[in-house]
Order: sequence, then C-alpha cells, then structure tokens
Amino acid sequence: MKKNNSLDEIAAALKKADTVLLFPHISMDGDAMGASSALCAALRKAGKTAYVVVEEKLPDMVAFLDRGYCTEDPKLTARPDVCVCVDCGEYKRFPKRKTLFRTGALSVCIDHHKTTEPFLDLNFIKEDAAATAEIVYELIPLLGVEIDEEIGSLIYAGIVTDTGKFQYSNTTRKTHLIAAELLALGVRASDISIMLYQNERMEKLLLGARIFDDARLFADGRAVISCITEKMLKETGGRLDETDGVTESLRDIRGVEVACLLKEKTAHTIKVSLRSKKDVDVAAFSEKNGGGGHTKAAGFTLNGYSVEDAKNMIIQQIEELFL
Amino acid sequence: MKKNNSLDEIAAALKKADTVLLFPHISMDGDAMGASSALCAALRKAGKTAYVVVEEKLPDMVAFLDRGYCTEDPKLTARPDVCVCVDCGEYKRFPKRKTLFRTGALSVCIDHHKTTEPFLDLNFIKEDAAATAEIVYELIPLLGVEIDEEIGSLIYAGIVTDTGKFQYSNTTRKTHLIAAELLALGVRASDISIMLYQNERMEKLLLGARIFDDARLFADGRAVISCITEKMLKETGGRLDETDGVTESLRDIRGVEVACLLKEKTAHTIKVSLRSKKDVDVAAFSEKNGGGGHTKAAGFTLNGYSVEDAKNMIIQQIEELFL
Repeated sequence: MKKNNSLDEIAAALKKADTVLLFPHISMDGDAMGASSALCAALRKAGKTAYVVVEEKLPDMVAFLDRGYCTEDPKLTARPDVCVCVDCGEYKRFPKRKTLFRTGALSVCIDHHKTTEPFLDLNFIKEDAAATAEIVYELIPLLGVEIDEEIGSLIYAGIVTDTGKFQYSNTTRKTHLIAAELLALGVRASDISIMLYQNERMEKLLLGARIFDDARLFADGRAVISCITEKMLKETGGRLDETDGVTESLRDIRGVEVACLLKEKTAHTIKVSLRSKKDVDVAAFSEKNGGGGHTKAAGFTLNGYSVEDAKNMIIQQIEELFL
Repeated sequence: MKKNNSLDEIAAALKKADTVLLFPHISMDGDAMGASSALCAALRKAGKTAYVVVEEKLPDMVAFLDRGYCTEDPKLTARPDVCVCVDCGEYKRFPKRKTLFRTGALSVCIDHHKTTEPFLDLNFIKEDAAATAEIVYELIPLLGVEIDEEIGSLIYAGIVTDTGKFQYSNTTRKTHLIAAELLALGVRASDISIMLYQNERMEKLLLGARIFDDARLFADGRAVISCITEKMLKETGGRLDETDGVTESLRDIRGVEVACLLKEKTAHTIKVSLRSKKDVDVAAFSEKNGGGGHTKAAGFTLNGYSVEDAKNMIIQQIEELFL
C-alpha cells in the first residue's frame, strides 16, 4: 500500500510540470467541478498549460462554473507531464479517460473520499477535509499563486456542495474560516448558490413530487425507499439525472435514518443512491455492494436486477442494518 | 422618529435590571427562538430572572431549542424591569402579549427586519445583520457573560435559519467568522441542522408534493403561485403550518424570480408567503399589502378574499412588478 505524500511534494511536482491534466470523477458534482477547475485556473495563473479533462456533457448544475477549463479535445491533452485525479481515487470513476490518464509522466491523486486508497505516484487523500476544494485551497498558495475571486468562487462551489450548505458534520471551524476568507475576496456566494440550487426545471419538481408520492417507509420508519420508473419520467418530463436533493428530502423525513432512491438506468442496470442522517455509514454499505462514497452520501450500481428485485434485496439488507 | 441606540446602552440597561422578559414574534422561527433564548440564557447566567414569553404552542421545528426558557405562565412574568421584543418591531407581531409587554418599566427592541422602525425606549435595529442572533452574539459579551456551548447552539440556530444555511446574500464574512467561533465552542451544528431540517413529517412531504403538482407559472415563467386547499390537507394529512421549505422549492424553479404560496387560514383569511430569488424586493411588496419581512422572504395576510380571488389579485400585482 502506498502512503500519502505531503501537499508540498505535490506542489513541487506541479511546479516542475509544463502541462497538467485534471481528471474529476464522472457525474460531476460541485466539488469535482469546483476543485478541479480551481486548480486548473491556478495552474494557468502559474504559467502552465492546464485542462480539466471530461468524458461526458457537464451536468446542468455545474456547467456554469466552466469558464474554458473543461475539454474533451484530444489535441489539447497530448503528452501531459502530470495527470491528477481530483475528488476521486479509482480508475472506474473516470473510465473512458483511464488510457489518457496513464499517458502522464507522473500521476497524482487529490481526494477526500474515505473509500479511496493511495494508488498513484503521489497521493494526498485527506478524509477529514470537508471537500476536495478545501485541499485545493491549501495547495494553491504552495504553487505561489494567490487565490482570486474566480478561483475562490470555484472553491466555494466545491465546499458548499460537499458540506450540504455547511450542514453536514464534515463542516469544521476551518470550513467556515475558509468561507469567510472567500467572501472577503469578493466571492458572490449567494449568486453561486442560486446557480447551484435555485435553477431547477419545473419538470424536475414534478418528478420529485411523484417520487415522494411513491415513497415507502420500512424498518419501523427508520428507512425509506422510492424509485424512478419509466412511467414517471414520461408523465412528468423529468430526467433520470435530475434527482439532486430528492434523496435528501426523503432522508429528512422524521425518524428516517437511511433513504434510498433506485433509478433504472438501462434494463437491469439500477443505480442506487443512499443518504443517511446520523449513525448509519452508507459508504460501508455501498462498498459491500461494489460502490462507495461518503459516510452519509454514497451509492452503487446493481446489474442483472429488475427494479422490484433490487428494491426487495435492498430493503432486506437495510433491515439487517437495524437488527 | 426615535433613533437607534448603541448595544452598550442596551447592555447597560439590561445589567441594571433584575427581571427581563423577552418577546419573540408569533410563528416563531429559528432566529426568533434562537436569539431570544440565547439572550435569556445569558441573562440567567448574569444572575437575572429572565423568560421568553410566548403566546402559542412552539412550532415543531424550534421546540427542541426550548430548555426551560419559554413560558406562558403569568405568575412568572409579573412586574418586569425590562421588556425586549426580539426579532420583531411591531405590537402586531406579539398581539396577545402587548399588554404584558407594556408593564415593563423599560422597553427595548432588538431586530434586523428592514421594515422595523425604532418605536420603544431603546432600539437596536440593524438591517444588515444576517440574523437577530448575530446581534445577540455581540450583545452578550457586553453583559459580561461568556458565550458557552448552550448559548452558542441557540445563536447558531438563529443564524442558520435566517441565512438559509449561509446561502442568502445577507451572509457576510462576519457570519462565517461567528459560525467558526461557535463550532470552536463545541456547538454541534450538524445535530442542530438535523433537528431543524431533517425532522419532517411524512405527511408534510406528501402535502409538498401536492403543492408542487398544483403550481402554476405566470409572468412569462418569472413567477409561480400555488395554494393549499382544505382538500389537500385532508388527503395528505399535512397541516397548514407545515410549509417551511415548500415556498423555497417553488422559488428554486429555473427562471422563477418570485414564488407565492397561499394558505387559507380561516374562511376568507388568507396567509400569503413570498420568496424572491435575486432582484425583486418582496418585503416592499408585502408592506403595500399590510405585511412585511425581508427583501427575499416576506408575507402578508388578506382578509375578505376567497382563495381564487386572492390568487387572481396577487397574480395581477406580481405581473405589474415585471412590467
């Protein structure tokens, strides 16, 4: 097992490089996008050629943060000196970019997921960082770059996302001190929040309403499960990827400790999202099912199950958690 | 028009008093409850007899914060030296307690609502305070009292409520610095957040789903309106007071600038809640209709209207805002 390196070692490696490519995980959220773009902006400020390499259309929610950082263009991403996976630590979290990632002369991992193990040339995995953006906030000054409003906005987006608006228990005194500094730099937190959270399609709201209607409590009300069916999508005009906040709303039901949302991605491929309130570690639960994530927000994918079979299996597994 | 006093003057008056009564507004939210209870706890720590006087059952959402501060008992509240209205600045915000309030030898107002004008013996109205709890955070040390975990928890509850989890534009560098200090005192922010936001009745979720289903966009999609009918309450088991977060979800629809939720309290008495995203001042709009509040969260009550008539009138008024 490789050990963690220091941020100084990683900064030194980045400073030596001319070309750096950053690899956030698929299904980009505010932290993957914010942390990688902030680091990209800082590297460019330091005179490097830097890109955030992506393999899919940016999710609506985070697309506004891309001010020329993201690319899928192979011409721009040839012969990188350093490749950094950001907010992830497994090849399966950037599957189509794995080959490109391996062309880097040096490989680096910067992450805060508790299920990540050091696996590259240099690794900085800090489980108690509220967000990968918090790590990037510490790394950038080591590159000799000052954090400006643009970089600060990207870092803020990462922190606000992964702390659930400063509400999850990963939020520390330090998280708030960083937020205070970012506001002092002129970061318009409220505008970022509006773009992240107040920009929902009406169809998404209607889909959410249907998911709530179909929710079923079990395990004596300590767990809740719901799923998205083809019919719901057709009737509401909602999309399968529009469920941010929905699983959280299910978790917020009084007495519920674990909330579970099933999404049929293709026939017999079911994505399972889990959220927990306080005591249950859904990352550990997801790992057993081949997935991963955070203690209170995690997920996995089931292959070869019908929605109904998946539902029954998960209900049984979650009921066992409470025995 | 009376002028604002300094916090030092208010602290001096409180230090001289033996008995202090605190009057938060009706329909108590986290800031009214948090700010008044924090000040109550601090006054008791300073050796005073202090109570938060209430006139209705505490709302579910904030009841957990009451650790012996709130009372309706007239025996406990006789002959107060100082009466303080907290997070409000009009008698109609504590109507049944107005007579008791006036028995105080000295009257004080501590508030941050932009629609409040100084009207008592001593007034401290700071519109740019994110929460009244932020003012109380500054006042308590002037009483010679150290903020401990209990007081800090109450202040945190006030701040997190009135900043919309640090997302509204009233959130400043100072707000985050205070939050950082509170976490350092041992305040369990995440536990408070779970009690405030992750403790919803299933029936409320179902009521919310019905409100979303009935939502109607107007003013070219820049506004949305929905209402709660008797039928919805019956079918979902939801309650009229269970709409925290629902109006906010309507506001969060893409393109929507103003969201409006109508609630029929009694026949022909309709409570109107308004939320705005960015540019529209719903406090000013509400004031014209006899109500008040904050720029982005305000409300008023209509008498003598059917739900349908109220809806039509409000749609017309809001459409005029966008002309």
